Amino acid sequence: MAKGAGMIRPDMATMLAVLTTDAALGADLLDHALRAAVDQSFHSLNVDGCPSTNDAVIVMASGASGITPDAETFTEHLTAACRTLANLVAADAEGASRVIRLEISGAADDATARRLGRAIADSALVRASFYGGDPNWGRIVGAMGATDIIFDPGAVAISFAGVTVAEQGVAASFDEDALVATIADGDFDVAVSVGDGPGQATVVTTDLTPDYVRFNAERS
Amino acid sequence: MAKGAGMIRPDMATMLAVLTTDAALGADLLDHALRAAVDQSFHSLNVDGCPSTNDAVIVMASGASGITPDAETFTEHLTAACRTLANLVAADAEGASRVIRLEISGAADDATARRLGRAIADSALVRASFYGGDPNWGRIVGAMGATDIIFDPGAVAISFAGVTVAEQGVAASFDEDALVATIADGDFDVAVSVGDGPGQATVVTTDLTPDYVRFNAERS
Repeated sequence: MAKGAGMIRPDMATMLAVLTTDAALGADLLDHALRAAVDQSFHSLNVDGCPSTNDAVIVMASGASGITPDAETFTEHLTAACRTLANLVAADAEGASRVIRLEISGAADDATARRLGRAIADSALVRASFYGGDPNWGRIVGAMGATDIIFDPGAVAISFAGVTVAEQGVAASFDEDALVATIADGDFDVAVSVGDGPGQATVVTTDLTPDYVRFNAERS
Repeated sequence: MAKGAGMIRPDMATMLAVLTTDAALGADLLDHALRAAVDQSFHSLNVDGCPSTNDAVIVMASGASGITPDAETFTEHLTAACRTLANLVAADAEGASRVIRLEISGAADDATARRLGRAIADSALVRASFYGGDPNWGRIVGAMGATDIIFDPGAVAISFAGVTVAEQGVAASFDEDALVATIADGDFDVAVSVGDGPGQATVVTTDLTPDYVRFNAERS
């Protein structure tokens, strides 16, 4: 169960997630599995670049089943559950009209890839273009270039919904009307490759909409 | 002269400022004066947290007057001119309905004060509340707390348009209806003190509006 993606009320938690299992697992293993799962799910979520002041993710194991699963398998399933919840939080975010999954690859390492993905999701200009269904790859390169991460602009390739819009740092040849029609309404993926490094990351964000602004401009 | 605050077209500069003087001044002095002036003006501007990829500020001295002013006096006047232009750029920013001047004080040093001011101006939540004319100081503290800068929340004081809304980290007693009426439409100042350090900075920003989102969602 998870609720979130809204400053519901300043004196209450803004995201709460509780996961339960009837597996028989000790606190140490649960702690380890939860940290790994959260890293790949809730920590990949960036709705509006505004970190919450008081989030909480809790996992509880009753042991009622009497079964002690393999640690790796349990972590895998816990991660999958957390990913599903994180995506639902994004889909339910204040004013958001769509969820965009950013897949970053080719960075020096995973941490760098995540920082690039977060910088893209932090950009109001990029997220406004997502709202408009505009495959504006120049804003994505601009957002990455505003970080202190060194990458070769001439090695950047970007695709929207599987259609390559830029490669080797310049515009690719593609059917823009067809792509715009494809991403006109629903969710879509954006893949960004910045070179041939092994680092990759997924960051899930939403579009920036007039409704988000109106919602957050209201006095509580 | 300055133009800017809009990604007018991706292959053109997004902010251009040109200053001219008929003073007789060499390149070294002009360079030094311009860097000082820009630091206190254009570098204090943060419309939407999205650094431009290609800004330029140029100063030219013709020497036609035959007068060589005192360096300090010239820098002062150049700074004042740059401040005026930077404020005009903010006032003319895409979709902005008002300009907010953030005055940060009490930080360890000026650079820290500026980083705090920029973090506040980077926050979509804070800028949406500016649009709504909501003296939401909790979001300001949240934006500062999301940085890696250490400060004592219990020492924070915040005022809107000269009215103290928080002191020693908690809500102050003030006439909220009167304040909301005061800041309902026009520009206003927000003063944030984070302690008793000597560091201070001014950051000029605008409100985040539905028009900003709509404007930047349109395909060019």
